[in-house]
Amino acid sequence: MTQQAKGQFINVGVIGAGGRMGRMLIEAVQDNPQTSLSAAIERQGSSLVGADAGEVAAIGRLGIQVVDDLSAVIDDIDVLIDFSLPDATEQNMQICAEHQVAMVIGTTGFSTQQEQVLFEASKHTAIVYAGNYSTGVNLSLKLLNMAAKAFGTDADVEVIEAHHKHKIDAPSGTAYMMAEAVAEARGQHLKDVANYGREGQTGARETGTIGIHAIRGGEIIGDHTVMFIADGEVVEITHRARARMTFAAGAVRAATWIIQQQAGQYNMQDVLGLNE
Amino acid sequence: MTQQAKGQFINVGVIGAGGRMGRMLIEAVQDNPQTSLSAAIERQGSSLVGADAGEVAAIGRLGIQVVDDLSAVIDDIDVLIDFSLPDATEQNMQICAEHQVAMVIGTTGFSTQQEQVLFEASKHTAIVYAGNYSTGVNLSLKLLNMAAKAFGTDADVEVIEAHHKHKIDAPSGTAYMMAEAVAEARGQHLKDVANYGREGQTGARETGTIGIHAIRGGEIIGDHTVMFIADGEVVEITHRARARMTFAAGAVRAATWIIQQQAGQYNMQDVLGLNE
Amino acid sequence: MTQQAKGQFINVGVIGAGGRMGRMLIEAVQDNPQTSLSAAIERQGSSLVGADAGEVAAIGRLGIQVVDDLSAVIDDIDVLIDFSLPDATEQNMQICAEHQVAMVIGTTGFSTQQEQVLFEASKHTAIVYAGNYSTGVNLSLKLLNMAAKAFGTDADVEVIEAHHKHKIDAPSGTAYMMAEAVAEARGQHLKDVANYGREGQTGARETGTIGIHAIRGGEIIGDHTVMFIADGEVVEITHRARARMTFAAGAVRAATWIIQQQAGQYNMQDVLGLNE
Amino acid sequence: MTQQAKGQFINVGVIGAGGRMGRMLIEAVQDNPQTSLSAAIERQGSSLVGADAGEVAAIGRLGIQVVDDLSAVIDDIDVLIDFSLPDATEQNMQICAEHQVAMVIGTTGFSTQQEQVLFEASKHTAIVYAGNYSTGVNLSLKLLNMAAKAFGTDADVEVIEAHHKHKIDAPSGTAYMMAEAVAEARGQHLKDVANYGREGQTGARETGTIGIHAIRGGEIIGDHTVMFIADGEVVEITHRARARMTFAAGAVRAATWIIQQQAGQYNMQDVLGLNE
Repeated sequence: MTQQAKGQFINVGVIGAGGRMGRMLIEAVQDNPQTSLSAAIERQGSSLVGADAGEVAAIGRLGIQVVDDLSAVIDDIDVLIDFSLPDATEQNMQICAEHQVAMVIGTTGFSTQQEQVLFEASKHTAIVYAGNYSTGVNLSLKLLNMAAKAFGTDADVEVIEAHHKHKIDAPSGTAYMMAEAVAEARGQHLKDVANYGREGQTGARETGTIGIHAIRGGEIIGDHTVMFIADGEVVEITHRARARMTFAAGAVRAATWIIQQQAGQYNMQDVLGLNE
Repeated sequence: MTQQAKGQFINVGVIGAGGRMGRMLIEAVQDNPQTSLSAAIERQGSSLVGADAGEVAAIGRLGIQVVDDLSAVIDDIDVLIDFSLPDATEQNMQICAEHQVAMVIGTTGFSTQQEQVLFEASKHTAIVYAGNYSTGVNLSLKLLNMAAKAFGTDADVEVIEAHHKHKIDAPSGTAYMMAEAVAEARGQHLKDVANYGREGQTGARETGTIGIHAIRGGEIIGDHTVMFIADGEVVEITHRARARMTFAAGAVRAATWIIQQQAGQYNMQDVLGLNE
Repeated sequence: MTQQAKGQFINVGVIGAGGRMGRMLIEAVQDNPQTSLSAAIERQGSSLVGADAGEVAAIGRLGIQVVDDLSAVIDDIDVLIDFSLPDATEQNMQICAEHQVAMVIGTTGFSTQQEQVLFEASKHTAIVYAGNYSTGVNLSLKLLNMAAKAFGTDADVEVIEAHHKHKIDAPSGTAYMMAEAVAEARGQHLKDVANYGREGQTGARETGTIGIHAIRGGEIIGDHTVMFIADGEVVEITHRARARMTFAAGAVRAATWIIQQQAGQYNMQDVLGLNE
Repeated sequence: MTQQAKGQFINVGVIGAGGRMGRMLIEAVQDNPQTSLSAAIERQGSSLVGADAGEVAAIGRLGIQVVDDLSAVIDDIDVLIDFSLPDATEQNMQICAEHQVAMVIGTTGFSTQQEQVLFEASKHTAIVYAGNYSTGVNLSLKLLNMAAKAFGTDADVEVIEAHHKHKIDAPSGTAYMMAEAVAEARGQHLKDVANYGREGQTGARETGTIGIHAIRGGEIIGDHTVMFIADGEVVEITHRARARMTFAAGAVRAATWIIQQQAGQYNMQDVLGLNE
């Protein structure tokens, strides 16, 4: 179960191996010098069961066959990465808890009962559970918290996000998270202070408000800038996602960290050492 | 009247010498190596009449007394710079036309009748008339025209402007000018395609629209960015005003150019050679 | 040979169909609503001869077999796109000239003799020949020319480019082109005014110099910013390449334009209407 | 000596009242709603001794005469702000220690012996001692420390600073401080990893190096950007100084904080709560 017992690599299993995220996770596991794919799991009935996981991910033969039963391969796994659906993840958490296999979970939409299963599982094994595995986004949220505390409402805060033209809602979830990080650090509720666009006779800016602007165009993957505009100086914190692979790489980074932890539930800011 | 007849400097007169813009114009005239202040005019009854124009502008004694009658000093002037009020400028245009003294006019709000006076005056003397004397803003408008023609609606256009927290309307006049420059180049009317903020279930971006976003905070003098977002590349044109003095310096630059022109009406893009 | 004779699409042939650029060109031809792939040519001996061109490009079967002889398919082609090697392009120009088939050439490294072949061919057919087919880069070069003329040396110019960590030289070719566009517009030679980094006791900035800075990191495809820094204002022109496909799409855009031109040699600025 | 004993305002004394920084400090003290100027000190022999401190600072009469002897006014002062010269500050520290008056010191260039005087004084009174009193710069240094720890050498770090054309050295002191903050957080020495410009056949970027680029132009007060460029994402932290007054305002903010502290030596990160 420990890294040492298995050799030089951390053996990683990937749930949902044939999905878009699963394929990127397989590639990211093989790209990370500390990890190696040891198991790839799909749902029962998938036509990909039996195929080579590397070929499924278009990175060349790995000699790991896709299977449809986690229990059959659980002993080959140091850390299981699971970005799938709540019901599937619920079962996987129980299997991992029983075998004390660490987990990195990116599944969203847990019910209250499923969160309870997570809580119980984390008594038996180490689990990272996060909504966003990007190093940069998690770091940015921490930086925004610090900046908001340092400036208070002496600085006017404006959030500008940019996404591709196909996106059908605005602002982005990440923009909301960033604005909330600022509002919370200043003891505000975002809904009381958010301002989503200015036109006409707006009057002077009200102290303590947060402007949020959504740019749309082309194929932009996702850029976010938060400006802290004080009277004589400006601090800007910008995050640019250049490739969706970064989220898979972050999950693998979490896998290399969780293997060394005690049983318990952790988030990505723990992985990145931002809560120390 | 010609530059040669007066010596090595272009002799510049400034209307409204005691106002905020007048003081900056005096400083800009003295800063420009080609120009020298030769007359400073204030309205009748101003307490500054008789004072030294340089001391009024806080740049040290110049030996030029502020007067309240343009006619009395018109023979000392090669170019008159006038950023005042429509009624005063109307009279000044008539005096300059009569004496064939060139003008640089930044006054706004002319009536139709006053525009007719301008038209008549420009038959007798050379006049630059512009709403904005910044080299950068005028250049940017030209660049936006070219970029909009090159991309057509293949690029999604978004305008982002930022101004100080005291500004009571949005977007800025310059942002409107920039968005209109793009719309016109694409054969659109801005009001049909402008979009002033996105929130909620917006749907995908409509081709050909122009997003306009107004950031407010601190003491920002005025920043404008226009993004042309194509699928695989982005072009951005950004203008940042760092000091209001830049508008005065542009007017003085216009003065050095207009002295060499035939009678007629010109704008700042003519001065900058952008219409060749 | 004309577009009308062939139906609703412009029929495009692609040289080097199996190479990295060739595959992107095939995809870009199929993506453009005005064009359709009608021929795909590889060198003799390539294992891809006989394969379906769409499958080679991983965009699905197109029913166009890769061939190794341009002459055999020349009558199916309205415009030939050629991003290959000088010797191959030399032969292709002769065949196209003979059959009056238009060309879009992205091949670099022509000898003087090969440039003469190009010159002769362009007497018989219409040819676009450019080093960079990105709309944004060509537009930016034109904008830089205008900005440099408008500001002269009143604005200090600094070029900042950013590329991926694997790039082994600096600055980028595009950064040189941009700096040269500024220098030429100001009547300078770039080598006399370029400055590639400042450290230590540099002294004050010399008027008329051009600073060039090369940022390296991660997987950045290619960003370029040119700043015109006047005393009271700044104009910035930025180009960001987000996907290499943009160069292929530009070549196909050139193909839709060249089909309507008289025999002659054109560049990408002609295609974009920037020289009118 | 306590704030309560003196009334509703914190009474602030300013050393070097007639100098450029002294004048800004007087203005900043009057601008801050918690503080009021209670004493203004100049060197013996200054022609400004006896003048009104508000008129010296061009903010209107304050009724506080400039004096040349700190001891004569020490009992009117809660906090003394001293941005002067090492020898003068040395004496001022001894007077403040004796009277237990808090200090905010921005003087640079202390000798080892003078640092010992500071150390002794801080046993008797509370002293803030910092090289830079900008909220934004101090915040940025803390953010850089966190970002560097989160990314390690997975992100390539590049520092870009921009200053006015008159600056005679490069990079700026603040750019060095920022690069050092990154290097230290990664366990490096800056001199081993700094890279001040790239030209020619540079080879691929070496992991762990820090690129530092100095832009010069116009009248830019001081902009700094640090990029953390990971393979799939980029985080940028930017500071822009818009007005030199921001440094004076930061010193006054430090004054409102130090009044509440125990005897000891503090820095600006303590004032901003960044070390908690």
